[in-house]
Amino acid sequence: MNQGDSDHYLARKRFFSRMLTVYGRKPVLEALENKDIQVHRLHLASSNKPGDLVRKISELATSKGAEILHHDKQALSRISRNAKQDQGVAADLLCPGFQTLDQLVEQIKSNALNRDFRILALDGITNPQNLGMIIRSACAGNIDAILLPSKGCAQIDPLTIKASVGTVFRAPIVRLDGQLADALRALKDSKCAIIGLSSRAQNTLNECPSGNNVFVLGNETHGVSDTTQATCSDWVKIPMNNGVESLNVAVTAALIAFH
Amino acid sequence: MNQGDSDHYLARKRFFSRMLTVYGRKPVLEALENKDIQVHRLHLASSNKPGDLVRKISELATSKGAEILHHDKQALSRISRNAKQDQGVAADLLCPGFQTLDQLVEQIKSNALNRDFRILALDGITNPQNLGMIIRSACAGNIDAILLPSKGCAQIDPLTIKASVGTVFRAPIVRLDGQLADALRALKDSKCAIIGLSSRAQNTLNECPSGNNVFVLGNETHGVSDTTQATCSDWVKIPMNNGVESLNVAVTAALIAFH
Repeated sequence: MNQGDSDHYLARKRFFSRMLTVYGRKPVLEALENKDIQVHRLHLASSNKPGDLVRKISELATSKGAEILHHDKQALSRISRNAKQDQGVAADLLCPGFQTLDQLVEQIKSNALNRDFRILALDGITNPQNLGMIIRSACAGNIDAILLPSKGCAQIDPLTIKASVGTVFRAPIVRLDGQLADALRALKDSKCAIIGLSSRAQNTLNECPSGNNVFVLGNETHGVSDTTQATCSDWVKIPMNNGVESLNVAVTAALIAFH
Repeated sequence: MNQGDSDHYLARKRFFSRMLTVYGRKPVLEALENKDIQVHRLHLASSNKPGDLVRKISELATSKGAEILHHDKQALSRISRNAKQDQGVAADLLCPGFQTLDQLVEQIKSNALNRDFRILALDGITNPQNLGMIIRSACAGNIDAILLPSKGCAQIDPLTIKASVGTVFRAPIVRLDGQLADALRALKDSKCAIIGLSSRAQNTLNECPSGNNVFVLGNETHGVSDTTQATCSDWVKIPMNNGVESLNVAVTAALIAFH
């Protein structure tokens, strides 16, 4: 690849890293009604019967300058990847807070924030409601990036969007194609501490190392996976009273986000 | 009422304030398996077919010294108050952390903890999952009492118990028969600050008055009710980034509990 090709490739990659395809009439309508969200394309099934909701969605998409495409039902389900729930409507949104892992690493290396980075890494969070709540709290609190692996985690589906109360569209999300452990190693190489949360840790959240911190939240039942554990440089717990053994993972995320 | 009667009445009231009736085979089994929970009575429907689960429940109840009573289906549903979900099984537990409002007020007046009290008051929390999560976080964090009105709030049902991961049985819960506003006025008279949570507040959670604090959490959609608002002496907010307007109420509770 020559320089031009490589620049073009990078630009494309970054453009697509911001693109989120949502589906279902209500989720699409809510996204379109949000003035901060840019819409790239609206996809409609040709089989949609004319009705108020689809008309409203089309009008909003037009007013936002989006391209409107019509597909047969099967083609639409290839776009939504969820024929059961797409209701003949999907939209490609451009989420301003989404970025690639490369961009995040670049920002950390250039000290772009002029302060330490605080990152959440999600390792096997399988409940979409928990994912949505984590995104909502992280977006409201002091978190600069949320690492969301495409495998082994709940994804940004209608349930997640609902539980996030729409904050997912402006949250600082880094979707990972590969293994979370690889991303964590890349962040470790950029001088981030990789901090696993575990009720069996010796130190508490108050005793985190200073500097750029990546907090790893594990699965609701099994905690941080073995592969991911191997990348953790530190472990912390949240001290609990009354013999309570664990907190809901979305609560843990919020306590980190607002720490 | 003479003194003896009045003492007897008070003792009865306090005994019953600790009693929680749970129903459904799995919730009852889990409660019985918890070694910290005392069981007063096990109620079984005479129509229950003999089976492993009911046998296990009966054996556990016997080993814990509980009285076992058999009822016809209708009588059992009057005890469980939920014929649809009781599955022919109910148990009266004695929860050590439960108490009456009078007891709480007495403790505050006598400075029983040798430090300030931190109390959560729930005003119209209607989602049992939120209630369960609030109880779990409050029990794990630094909360001395949770005020749970019997009207207008979700109650301690199987969903709540599940979301609380069983912590409800040892949580410091004060169930209120009357209006929350009346209880808040009683606490105000005992030198507690009544602090409403609202995103429109000027001050932040960091700027709470020192002393005994009661934090009022309002309904998931409508916030603190008008009647309750009138009792609030202070208002605080949790500062949020990225234009996020609100947090999940269970997350707010956790941030208070671990503040």
